[in-house]
Amino acid sequence: MRLLVKVGGGESVKSEAVAADLGTMKDASFVVVHGANALRDSLARRLGVEKRVITSVSGYDSVFSDDDAIDLLLMAYAGVRNKRLVEALQGHGVDAVGLTGLDGALVRGRRNRGIRVREGGKTLIRRDLSGKPVVVNRKLLGLLLDNGYTPVMTVPIVDEHGVAVNSENDDIVVLLDATLKPDWVIQLVEAPGYLADPDDPGSVVPRMTWAEVAEREAEATGRMKRKMLALKRLGTRPGARVVIADGRVEHPVLDALAGRGTLIA
Amino acid sequence: MRLLVKVGGGESVKSEAVAADLGTMKDASFVVVHGANALRDSLARRLGVEKRVITSVSGYDSVFSDDDAIDLLLMAYAGVRNKRLVEALQGHGVDAVGLTGLDGALVRGRRNRGIRVREGGKTLIRRDLSGKPVVVNRKLLGLLLDNGYTPVMTVPIVDEHGVAVNSENDDIVVLLDATLKPDWVIQLVEAPGYLADPDDPGSVVPRMTWAEVAEREAEATGRMKRKMLALKRLGTRPGARVVIADGRVEHPVLDALAGRGTLIA
Repeated sequence: MRLLVKVGGGESVKSEAVAADLGTMKDASFVVVHGANALRDSLARRLGVEKRVITSVSGYDSVFSDDDAIDLLLMAYAGVRNKRLVEALQGHGVDAVGLTGLDGALVRGRRNRGIRVREGGKTLIRRDLSGKPVVVNRKLLGLLLDNGYTPVMTVPIVDEHGVAVNSENDDIVVLLDATLKPDWVIQLVEAPGYLADPDDPGSVVPRMTWAEVAEREAEATGRMKRKMLALKRLGTRPGARVVIADGRVEHPVLDALAGRGTLIA
Repeated sequence: MRLLVKVGGGESVKSEAVAADLGTMKDASFVVVHGANALRDSLARRLGVEKRVITSVSGYDSVFSDDDAIDLLLMAYAGVRNKRLVEALQGHGVDAVGLTGLDGALVRGRRNRGIRVREGGKTLIRRDLSGKPVVVNRKLLGLLLDNGYTPVMTVPIVDEHGVAVNSENDDIVVLLDATLKPDWVIQLVEAPGYLADPDDPGSVVPRMTWAEVAEREAEATGRMKRKMLALKRLGTRPGARVVIADGRVEHPVLDALAGRGTLIA
């Protein structure tokens, strides 16, 4: 069995418990993708680095990734969270190797074209250090998996010119799913599954079809829309199976595989 | 030709120039080990994390690596400096993969036994998160090198129990030299070479024999003694060749190979 496990970047998602679960599954192979947004934000506060948000002409807010933002990403995602997860996995007998998309150009992307903004009465294009993942280095990933290693991946990715750019982990998961065709994609979040009502933890939807995902995506707004869009794209692969499950529990992965959470197939 | 390049962690050592040099050497293969002490220290100041120093019963000062110190290491060494170096190498066509000793247990070490200290009238053993590198994962290193990747390595390493511990990069270089038997070990520092008088940049020693290294080690004190001891240990491998060269110049690696700096053979 091959699993693609996405460990959300929320503060209460338990990396240690994820590592312990994977350590018990001796016959499976894994690719792990993780976030670190809570850690990034707290580090930004401690360092006094402000998040730059810009508003496009069409009224859409985006985080603007400048060089400082990439450094922050490197500290939180590539540094602390990635290596602490690798450490936890190593401690549970899983031979993890932590990598960003930069390493061996593991995730190559296309730089975003920029955002149209109004500034001082003029319309300008502001281009930041962000991009969309386009291709995975299948050779490097295969080399690691075939030799018993568990890749533990995170942002940044590398653009067309070898530059580190920020990207959405959800989009990286879509690309990895298409490349690896895992038996299950497990998305560990700070909720007991997909919630019909985001404010009601009791509103977990136990099963969804891909058609339902598409409907919910059409209704979603803001950041949730982006997440639902990535989820919908997972459904375009025939046979794709996803569980959205609670990353805060004692056995996040085993519970997800036991069907706790939201199963999409 | 195979090179083991140690990029010192000083502020003025130019990673970008190192990457550019390696990018021109199409027929060589490299393993890079780097520090990040200047970055670590400046980050510690910004975060208000104090360096803990403890004094042993025998009067010897040591930096005490606690969990915060390891996090700081992960941010500065494994995060920013490692990935920025990988980015620079990728930008110059070198297919770099950044790894700590944790990743794939690339550098396995032995946890230090602890330091004997006097506290409140009692003698106690204080054990921190530090250790000595013992064995390199030759299989993983070979897998990467044989497939055209350039490993870019840094601390932390992993101890007997899978725990992240700090270590001396100089000791990691000794271990890698024994494992890889490179043609040259190039150590890039913030000086034009080994200085007979540390305060006089004009006092570069152009050539040293291993016997002279041993003599100078015997006379050295403090941190320099530790560095000279690591250098002396490099000399125990028959055929070992080292250049200590300036990491602040436009062509740090090419200059080192042209014999600028201190050549030890």
